[in-house]
Amino acid sequence: MLGRIIENGSTVLLYSLKGKSWLIKVDSKNEFHTHFGAVKFSEIVGKRYGDIVKTNSGQELILLEPLLVDYLMKSERRTQIVYPKDIGLIILETGIGPGSIVVEAGTGSGVLTTAVANFVRPSGKVYSYEIRPEFIEIAKRNLKRVGLEDYVIIKNKDASHGFDEKEVDVVLIDVGAPWTLVKPAFDALKGGGALAAILPTINQAEKLAVELKKNGFVNVNTVELLCRPIEAREGMSRPSTRMIAHTAYLMFARKSFLKVNTSYNENSCDGSEKV
Amino acid sequence: MLGRIIENGSTVLLYSLKGKSWLIKVDSKNEFHTHFGAVKFSEIVGKRYGDIVKTNSGQELILLEPLLVDYLMKSERRTQIVYPKDIGLIILETGIGPGSIVVEAGTGSGVLTTAVANFVRPSGKVYSYEIRPEFIEIAKRNLKRVGLEDYVIIKNKDASHGFDEKEVDVVLIDVGAPWTLVKPAFDALKGGGALAAILPTINQAEKLAVELKKNGFVNVNTVELLCRPIEAREGMSRPSTRMIAHTAYLMFARKSFLKVNTSYNENSCDGSEKV
Amino acid sequence: MLGRIIENGSTVLLYSLKGKSWLIKVDSKNEFHTHFGAVKFSEIVGKRYGDIVKTNSGQELILLEPLLVDYLMKSERRTQIVYPKDIGLIILETGIGPGSIVVEAGTGSGVLTTAVANFVRPSGKVYSYEIRPEFIEIAKRNLKRVGLEDYVIIKNKDASHGFDEKEVDVVLIDVGAPWTLVKPAFDALKGGGALAAILPTINQAEKLAVELKKNGFVNVNTVELLCRPIEAREGMSRPSTRMIAHTAYLMFARKSFLKVNTSYNENSCDGSEKV
Amino acid sequence: MLGRIIENGSTVLLYSLKGKSWLIKVDSKNEFHTHFGAVKFSEIVGKRYGDIVKTNSGQELILLEPLLVDYLMKSERRTQIVYPKDIGLIILETGIGPGSIVVEAGTGSGVLTTAVANFVRPSGKVYSYEIRPEFIEIAKRNLKRVGLEDYVIIKNKDASHGFDEKEVDVVLIDVGAPWTLVKPAFDALKGGGALAAILPTINQAEKLAVELKKNGFVNVNTVELLCRPIEAREGMSRPSTRMIAHTAYLMFARKSFLKVNTSYNENSCDGSEKV
Repeated sequence: MLGRIIENGSTVLLYSLKGKSWLIKVDSKNEFHTHFGAVKFSEIVGKRYGDIVKTNSGQELILLEPLLVDYLMKSERRTQIVYPKDIGLIILETGIGPGSIVVEAGTGSGVLTTAVANFVRPSGKVYSYEIRPEFIEIAKRNLKRVGLEDYVIIKNKDASHGFDEKEVDVVLIDVGAPWTLVKPAFDALKGGGALAAILPTINQAEKLAVELKKNGFVNVNTVELLCRPIEAREGMSRPSTRMIAHTAYLMFARKSFLKVNTSYNENSCDGSEKV
Repeated sequence: MLGRIIENGSTVLLYSLKGKSWLIKVDSKNEFHTHFGAVKFSEIVGKRYGDIVKTNSGQELILLEPLLVDYLMKSERRTQIVYPKDIGLIILETGIGPGSIVVEAGTGSGVLTTAVANFVRPSGKVYSYEIRPEFIEIAKRNLKRVGLEDYVIIKNKDASHGFDEKEVDVVLIDVGAPWTLVKPAFDALKGGGALAAILPTINQAEKLAVELKKNGFVNVNTVELLCRPIEAREGMSRPSTRMIAHTAYLMFARKSFLKVNTSYNENSCDGSEKV
Repeated sequence: MLGRIIENGSTVLLYSLKGKSWLIKVDSKNEFHTHFGAVKFSEIVGKRYGDIVKTNSGQELILLEPLLVDYLMKSERRTQIVYPKDIGLIILETGIGPGSIVVEAGTGSGVLTTAVANFVRPSGKVYSYEIRPEFIEIAKRNLKRVGLEDYVIIKNKDASHGFDEKEVDVVLIDVGAPWTLVKPAFDALKGGGALAAILPTINQAEKLAVELKKNGFVNVNTVELLCRPIEAREGMSRPSTRMIAHTAYLMFARKSFLKVNTSYNENSCDGSEKV
Repeated sequence: MLGRIIENGSTVLLYSLKGKSWLIKVDSKNEFHTHFGAVKFSEIVGKRYGDIVKTNSGQELILLEPLLVDYLMKSERRTQIVYPKDIGLIILETGIGPGSIVVEAGTGSGVLTTAVANFVRPSGKVYSYEIRPEFIEIAKRNLKRVGLEDYVIIKNKDASHGFDEKEVDVVLIDVGAPWTLVKPAFDALKGGGALAAILPTINQAEKLAVELKKNGFVNVNTVELLCRPIEAREGMSRPSTRMIAHTAYLMFARKSFLKVNTSYNENSCDGSEKV
């Protein structure tokens, strides 16, 4: 038997060859309307992931099992979200993995929170701080939809007053004034623990780098990831005409007990000496 | 008490503020020589991660607990490795996480293998195919050093003849002729399963995209990630003068049971409709 | 006296602080309508370039003397135009300047033609080949508007059958099958003369590079320019969110009498050894 | 007759297929030594540009007529030079061409000066300000070698005290504190005249943008050009592994008599609305 069977209540990514997709929950009594026509959920139940369903206007849609990234990109959001390219590097550079204890300042819509929760499973935990109650509700809904709510504790607290957690593996910072969180981050982290910050402007990066180095952080490393879409087409390949040119700068650092830090920050990507 | 204690036998990343670092195993009877001077291991034992040790010439080195990325970048290697920026996006876009069953063609030095093994813990598994026995030995040493060997089975087989595994979540392709693996990948994947390929040249990307679409794969999506190091320095911030401009194109796709695929490939990064 | 005086018949760039602009010819009996309101031309006559005029709805517009680049970007066009970033590098890398004799294959809308005409003044000439008569009319109108028609001879001929001109300084190629023009270009160029080609796809670049090297061209050099807009704003500077990611690859080469060329092409930008 | 004849006293670019090149003046009594062997100048005299000469160790070198860009990249220099990609866009965006009157602050090694001098020929002029006498000598030697000294007047004066010239077409700024030159630039420019600045750091760009808008400049536009070398090789094309990632930000603006400027700066490259 090939592919898992879709049941009533399953979540499905309806994917059109025209590049549109919809993340839906199968409710066999209803139907789903797209501008390519309507699909009866009763026709989906019993099919395998990977199978095709036709709309009432004859358009083919493919039934895909949603991946984490589909949930992230289809999140309910009122803030700028963190994009997959940036999430991926944050996970790698901070060492987040099964069992990690992670503290986050700035839950926002919970997109990064959700991604991190996925990777700390089954034994880790994410403690996420957010001062705006309305975002907490959004983040909780996003976490619940993907089924990761058990791995996250969201706190309606101002992280600049300090994190409750100590000896944590990783601190993530996604707030407008990240430099106010350097001392709280230091106090929360274990020795050698990793910090990552998401910084839309260079001014934020500059102020944070200064503050990190004043407070014992080493290996302060700032990068920017550009994701360039490529049209790989037979005999006529080329980069796409347009791209998202900037999401955020990413800054990484490690906690040390160093008293005076005279290092430059390091600005290293793959390929050069990398701690 | 802050920070874990370093013992005899611990692995430590010795980090210099000058941007050099060394991944070492503490052996209290010996010492470690750098061009910044020598360090007696006996002086390291009993210190916390995050603490400082001085070389016999007075240079300060910071004792950091190695992260996954440190092991990856310090791997023994004879091939071009996959870089953290690319690994991160591959993990995100394929949905690899705790419990994933992943098949890889082209173990090489085992850097991607190691990273994936880390994220499928504790209940997933990586099956990695490599035709060159000498690389298998390197990959095994790299996996063992980071303690992830139990999550990987390396097979000295030609994957273009087919994978042994069926209904897997993800197929990863990192070989010179990736198009020869499209049918084996289709046969191994579950319906809706994800494929990712690492492609140094655009010619490989072009041939693979054509072959994927001929064989039922949808959401064929090609991107390139550029990691730009940034010098975030007070009053004089700027991108670094030099950067690694190209490592590889990344291609992602999902298995479907579609018979005729007339879609373009999609070339979508963050920000546009995804999946 | 500050600034030149605008007369009836002058060409003016009406520039709005909201980032819109219009290239207009002053006709004192008429008025000009924008979505910011109407401007009577009679109010413009007698003002200086740099002065302000208000629309009937109170919006300020600035009267600027059009630069070459304004004419280029406001050209009548039915084809993909060549952008300023690419034109600038082509001018530099081919050595186009006052007195240059330049042959162009693929007039298109005449944007590159116009730019080159500007820089070969007063003693140089551009001979431009175009097989589609309808484009010749557009190009002629574009050239005439900026007053550069005397420096260009457009020929309704297929350049792949050979250029009429010999011993020219520069050959420019902007056609779909650029490799068909390598021999004609060689025959037209003086020894050491420069060739530049505009190539939307990598496949075109690949085929052209091979053909150039087979035919005595050296210093075959392929680059791509990315122009990244930057938001330089007090305390919140960052690259713009979106950018044009690809216009075309540019290839440069020099004619030599070498019989067998075993060189790689060189892929050099600024900063490395550059001939 | 094919190609011009090289004489005693001619300047020649000796170009090796291995990607090295030398800019030399032919002196028929001497010889020239490279690590590919020696070349007797007497063997070069009488050859055509484009011809081949062999070193005494049998290596082929190609005799090319130097282009402006060859002189620029082989300039004597003690400062960071302006690169061809940036020069090209500056020429285009400021409207520099035959007859332009250009004022430059910061001669440095005279590389940009030389390029601009080339394009204002035969009727234009460049007035270049430099406070460091030692750079003036270097710049004069660079200008003289390419034969453009008649088009440039270099002044050993501090431009922040004001330019002597009025009603100029273009002001170029390449100094460490560019904001000190905004008022002098305004006073020197004709109405609607163009300003361009070369800015290594984002902090300089930010301060300059603020100051320009305070002082009546409009269409303040900041961009960064990245030049990506491409390996266009049959069946294995790809971007080069390394590139120069940053030279400088470029800022462009136009002088207006506007009193209060509430516009954002525009950050426009090719493709979007561009004045």
